[in-house]
Amino acid sequence: MTTIGFIGLGVMGAPMAANLVGAGYDVIGYNRSRGRVDALVAKGGRAASSVAEAVRGAEVVITMLPDSPDVEQVVMGEDGVLHHAQAGTLLVDASTIRPDVSRAIAQACRARGVRALDAPVSGGEAGAIEGTLSIMVGGDPADFDAAHEVLRAVGSTIVHVGPAGAGQTVKAANQLIVAGTLELLAEALVFLSAHGVDLASAVEVLGGGLAGSAVLQRKAPAMLDRRFEPGFRVDLHHKDLGIVLDAARAAGVAIPLGAHVADLLASLRAQGGGQLDHSALLLQVEKLSGEDNELAPNRAASR
Amino acid sequence: MTTIGFIGLGVMGAPMAANLVGAGYDVIGYNRSRGRVDALVAKGGRAASSVAEAVRGAEVVITMLPDSPDVEQVVMGEDGVLHHAQAGTLLVDASTIRPDVSRAIAQACRARGVRALDAPVSGGEAGAIEGTLSIMVGGDPADFDAAHEVLRAVGSTIVHVGPAGAGQTVKAANQLIVAGTLELLAEALVFLSAHGVDLASAVEVLGGGLAGSAVLQRKAPAMLDRRFEPGFRVDLHHKDLGIVLDAARAAGVAIPLGAHVADLLASLRAQGGGQLDHSALLLQVEKLSGEDNELAPNRAASR
Amino acid sequence: MTTIGFIGLGVMGAPMAANLVGAGYDVIGYNRSRGRVDALVAKGGRAASSVAEAVRGAEVVITMLPDSPDVEQVVMGEDGVLHHAQAGTLLVDASTIRPDVSRAIAQACRARGVRALDAPVSGGEAGAIEGTLSIMVGGDPADFDAAHEVLRAVGSTIVHVGPAGAGQTVKAANQLIVAGTLELLAEALVFLSAHGVDLASAVEVLGGGLAGSAVLQRKAPAMLDRRFEPGFRVDLHHKDLGIVLDAARAAGVAIPLGAHVADLLASLRAQGGGQLDHSALLLQVEKLSGEDNELAPNRAASR
Amino acid sequence: MTTIGFIGLGVMGAPMAANLVGAGYDVIGYNRSRGRVDALVAKGGRAASSVAEAVRGAEVVITMLPDSPDVEQVVMGEDGVLHHAQAGTLLVDASTIRPDVSRAIAQACRARGVRALDAPVSGGEAGAIEGTLSIMVGGDPADFDAAHEVLRAVGSTIVHVGPAGAGQTVKAANQLIVAGTLELLAEALVFLSAHGVDLASAVEVLGGGLAGSAVLQRKAPAMLDRRFEPGFRVDLHHKDLGIVLDAARAAGVAIPLGAHVADLLASLRAQGGGQLDHSALLLQVEKLSGEDNELAPNRAASR
Repeated sequence: MTTIGFIGLGVMGAPMAANLVGAGYDVIGYNRSRGRVDALVAKGGRAASSVAEAVRGAEVVITMLPDSPDVEQVVMGEDGVLHHAQAGTLLVDASTIRPDVSRAIAQACRARGVRALDAPVSGGEAGAIEGTLSIMVGGDPADFDAAHEVLRAVGSTIVHVGPAGAGQTVKAANQLIVAGTLELLAEALVFLSAHGVDLASAVEVLGGGLAGSAVLQRKAPAMLDRRFEPGFRVDLHHKDLGIVLDAARAAGVAIPLGAHVADLLASLRAQGGGQLDHSALLLQVEKLSGEDNELAPNRAASR
Repeated sequence: MTTIGFIGLGVMGAPMAANLVGAGYDVIGYNRSRGRVDALVAKGGRAASSVAEAVRGAEVVITMLPDSPDVEQVVMGEDGVLHHAQAGTLLVDASTIRPDVSRAIAQACRARGVRALDAPVSGGEAGAIEGTLSIMVGGDPADFDAAHEVLRAVGSTIVHVGPAGAGQTVKAANQLIVAGTLELLAEALVFLSAHGVDLASAVEVLGGGLAGSAVLQRKAPAMLDRRFEPGFRVDLHHKDLGIVLDAARAAGVAIPLGAHVADLLASLRAQGGGQLDHSALLLQVEKLSGEDNELAPNRAASR
Repeated sequence: MTTIGFIGLGVMGAPMAANLVGAGYDVIGYNRSRGRVDALVAKGGRAASSVAEAVRGAEVVITMLPDSPDVEQVVMGEDGVLHHAQAGTLLVDASTIRPDVSRAIAQACRARGVRALDAPVSGGEAGAIEGTLSIMVGGDPADFDAAHEVLRAVGSTIVHVGPAGAGQTVKAANQLIVAGTLELLAEALVFLSAHGVDLASAVEVLGGGLAGSAVLQRKAPAMLDRRFEPGFRVDLHHKDLGIVLDAARAAGVAIPLGAHVADLLASLRAQGGGQLDHSALLLQVEKLSGEDNELAPNRAASR
Repeated sequence: MTTIGFIGLGVMGAPMAANLVGAGYDVIGYNRSRGRVDALVAKGGRAASSVAEAVRGAEVVITMLPDSPDVEQVVMGEDGVLHHAQAGTLLVDASTIRPDVSRAIAQACRARGVRALDAPVSGGEAGAIEGTLSIMVGGDPADFDAAHEVLRAVGSTIVHVGPAGAGQTVKAANQLIVAGTLELLAEALVFLSAHGVDLASAVEVLGGGLAGSAVLQRKAPAMLDRRFEPGFRVDLHHKDLGIVLDAARAAGVAIPLGAHVADLLASLRAQGGGQLDHSALLLQVEKLSGEDNELAPNRAASR
C-alpha cells in the first residue's frame, strides 16, 4: 500500500486527503493546527506532528498550501521536505503558486533525486469533496504517469500540460477565466434584477445555453441566497491574479478583461471583502450600481 | 396537426424549422431568398412566397429575424403578420431584439387579438441543429403554456422569465455573458500560447474545472483550428451588446466587464471582423499581443 | 447697439449674459424661473417674460440650455424661437447637445431664413465668469464671422471647426477628455494619499510638468478641500458622455478610456452623486479603494 | 564654484547638464558612450572617463539613468558612487525608479555619510532643454534646501514632497496622469477625424478650455504631423507604469483608468512600438478603430 504524506489540510487539502484515505491509501497528514490533523485521523488517516514525520517513509508527498513562500519554506526550508525525503520520492505540489517558483522547486528536487510535479487543481471545495477536481500537471511525463493513479482519487480530469511550471501557468489561465466569469455572472444578475426579472428562472435558462458554465452552476445559487462565506477567498484569488498579471506583462500578452477583473477584485478586497468567497464580486457590482449592501467599506480590516 | 408559419430561415431559423417538421408539425416557411424556402420543402415543409401566405391558416407564427426593425416591419408593417393573422394566433418571436420593441409588438398584437411571446434563444447553430436551444420566454403565462409543446421541438431548456420583453432582457444578459466568456477564453489561450503550453491539453483540463463553460466546450475547438466562419457573426453580437449597453445605462446598473467587451467587439468589427464568428475575438487578442494574423485592418470593408 | 436675446440663465448662461451686458450689448434675457431674469436686470440687462419677447427685435439670439430636447422645444417648438424670429436673425446655440440635433436645428433655421451656429463652450463656471471660455463653433463661415464679435465678450478662444454640428462633435471630444482627466487626477490623488504624500505639494509639482492641465489647475483645489457642490453636475457630464458613446459607436471608433470613464461616471451617478460636481469622481475612487466617505449609496435618490 | 558630477547624459541628462554648465557650474560628466561626454565638453563641461572620476571632487552628484538596476549599480555597485564619494557629498538621483529602491539607496548613502535625494523630473525633452522641468523631491528638508539652487538651473517648479522615496511616488502618479492624458487625446483625435472635423482647429479650441493640458500643447502637434520618434519612449513609460501598478496593488488603491492605459501601452509595445514616442498611443487607437498605419505588428522586434 502506497504511503502518502499530505501537508496542508485546509479547505481543499482536508477533503483531498480524506478521498485518498477512502481510496485505500495510507495517508499521513500534517497541518500547523492540530485539529485539522485529528479530523483526518478520525477518517482513517494517520497523524504527523511535523513535516519530517509526514515525509519520512512516504513514497508520495502532496503539498496543498496557500502561497509561493509557504511552499518554498515547506519544501526547501530548514527541516523541510527535501531535508527528509528519500531519493525517488514523488513530490506533488497541488498548491497554486508562481510558475517560476514551481520551476525552482523542481530544480531543487532534481538535485536531491526527488521527483517533482506541479499539480494545481480547479473545481473548488465542492470538487475537492466530490473528488472531481480538474488537475493541471507540469513535470516529466514519467513522473506524471507515476502519479496518475494517486491523482485519480482526488480528481476526474487529470492532464499533463507540459514541463515543470506548466501546471501553474494553466492554473493562472484558469483563475483568469474563473474571476472573469464570476464577474460577468454578477453583472448579469444585477442587470436582470434592475429590470425586474425573476433571477432563479433567469439562471435556469441561462445555464441551458451558451452562457452556461461551471461558475453559473456552482456559484449562482449562493449568489441568489446571498451566502458569501468561503469557499475560495477573495484574498487568494487576488493573489492568483497577481501571478496572472505578472506573467502576462512579462510575456507581452494582452489580457484586457483579465486586467480589468483583477482591478475589480482588488477593489472588492480594499473594501473589506478579502475574507469572503470570490462570488462576492456580486456585492461590488451592486455597490457600483448604487445599492447598499453588507459589504462594509472598511479598509483597515482588509489590510 | 398544428400549422406553424415560420418566417426567417437563416442560420438559426432553418434548423429550427427543420426540427419542427421532424416533430410532426405542418410548417410553412417563408424567407426573402427563395433557396432557403426550397431547402425547407426538401425536408418536408411547405413553401410560402410571402408573409401573408405563411401566416394565413397558421395557428402559431414563429419569427426568427436579425434585428428590431426587421421584426417591426414583418409583424407590424404593411402586409405584415398582424395584417393577415386571425384572432387567437400565437406569435412567437424568437429573434433577439430590443426589449422595448418586444413590448410594443406585444401591445400591438393584443389590440388585434393576437397572442404574442418574445422567445429569444441561446445555444448557437449547434444548439439549433440539435434541438437543444435554451429559450427565454416573456409574455402571459397562459400563452407560454400554449407554446410549450411547440418549443420543445427546438429547445431543451424552456423557461418563462416574466412579462412581455422579459425574454429579451434575459437574452441581453445572455449575450453579455457569452461575449465576455469568449473574450476570457481568447485571452487565456493567447496567454498560454505565449508561455509555450500545449493548447489542446490546456483546454481539456480547463474544461473539467471551474473554468469550464459551454463557450469553452463549443468554441475552443474552432479557435484552436482557427476556423472563424460563422456561426454567430460579430456584427450581430455587436448589435446585441448595443441593446445591453442601452438597457444598463437606462437602469443605472454597472456592467464594467460588459462595457469593456462591447468596446473590444466594436473594435474587432472596425478592423474588418464583422462577418466572422464571434470567436474571432481571439484574433483581436492576438493583434493586441503583437501577433500578425488574418484579421486585415480594413476599415472600409466593415462599414 | 446690437440687441441680443439670451435664453437660459443658469450656472453658465447667467455670467455669459452678464459679460455681454458688460461689453455694451443690449441683452434681453429669459429664463423659466423669474429670479434669474431679475438678477440679469440688476446687472443692466432687460427682462423678457417669454421666449417670444426675448426673440422679437433681437438681431442675435443665444440659447444656453441643458439638453437636446430643451433646445428642440425652445427653438422649434410651438411659440419657439423660429416662430418669432425675423429673417436674418443669427441663432447661436451654446448648449451641449447631440450633433444630429444641431444639424436638424440648422436645417429648420435655414428653411425660415434664420442663420444658425452651434457654439458649445468649455471652461466651466469660472471660465464663464471670467469671460475666458473656449468656444467651438459649427456652421457657415460667414455666420461665424458675423458672430465673432459677440462671442469675444464671453470667450477668449473662439474657433470655427466645421459645418453645422461640428461644434457639438468637438464638444463631445472635449467632454471625453475632461471626464478622463478628472478621473486620472482622482486616481493620482488617492494613490498619493495612500502613500502618505502631502497632496498640496504634489499638486503643485504635478502642475508644473507634463501632467499639468486645466483640470488639475481648476479642480484639484476643490478636490483637496472636498468641496463637491457644482460647478458642472455629474448628471450633465453623464448625459454628454452618452452623446460621445453613441457617436463613437456609430463611427466605429475605439475609445477605450472614454468608455471606461463613462462607466465610472454612470456608477457615481447610480450611487447618488448625480447632483455633485464632476470632480466627485474622487469620491468614487476612494470608495473603490476602501474608504468610507460622504457618497451615500442611495440608488433611489439618483433615479 | 560648485563642482557637479553628472552621470547619465541621455535624452534628458544631456540638456540638463548643459543647463548646469550654462548656469556657471563646474560640471564633470560621465556616460558609457564617449560621444555624449564629448558633446558636453563642447558646451563647456569637463569629461570623466569613469564614475569614479565624475564623483571625486564633486560636492553634488546627479544621476539620470534609465531604470532601477542602473541606479543601484552606479550608486551602490562595485566602483560606484558610494565607493568614491566623500562624506557630505549630496547625491541627487533624477532618474525615475522604484520608490523602494530610492529608499534603499538613501539608507545606503546615510550609512556612508552621503546625503541623498530622489528628484525625478517631468516636462520631457522640451522641458529639459528649456530648463523648465518640474522636479519632485524626496528626502531630508535640509538636503532639499542645499540642492535647491542647483536644481533651479534645470527646472522651474521644484517641490519637496516628503521623505526619501516620496519624489518617486509623485513621479509614479505623474506617469499615470501623463499616459492617461495621452491616450485620451489620441482617442479624441481619432474620434474627431472619423467625424470629419479639422484636427488643427479642434486642437486649438480644445486647448483653450477645460480639456487643455501640457500633453495637448506639447504632444498634439507631433501627433498631427505623425512624428513619433522619441522623445520619451514607450518602453520607458511601460516600465514606469509597472511601478505604478505594483505600488497601487500593494497599497490597495483602485486606479481603473491607470490600469487600463497600462494595458494599452503594454499592447502598443507588444505590437512593436517600444522604441516610439509615447504619443504613438495614437497609432494604437487608430488600429483599434480599423485604420491601417505604420505600426507594424512585429512582436519579435519588441522583445
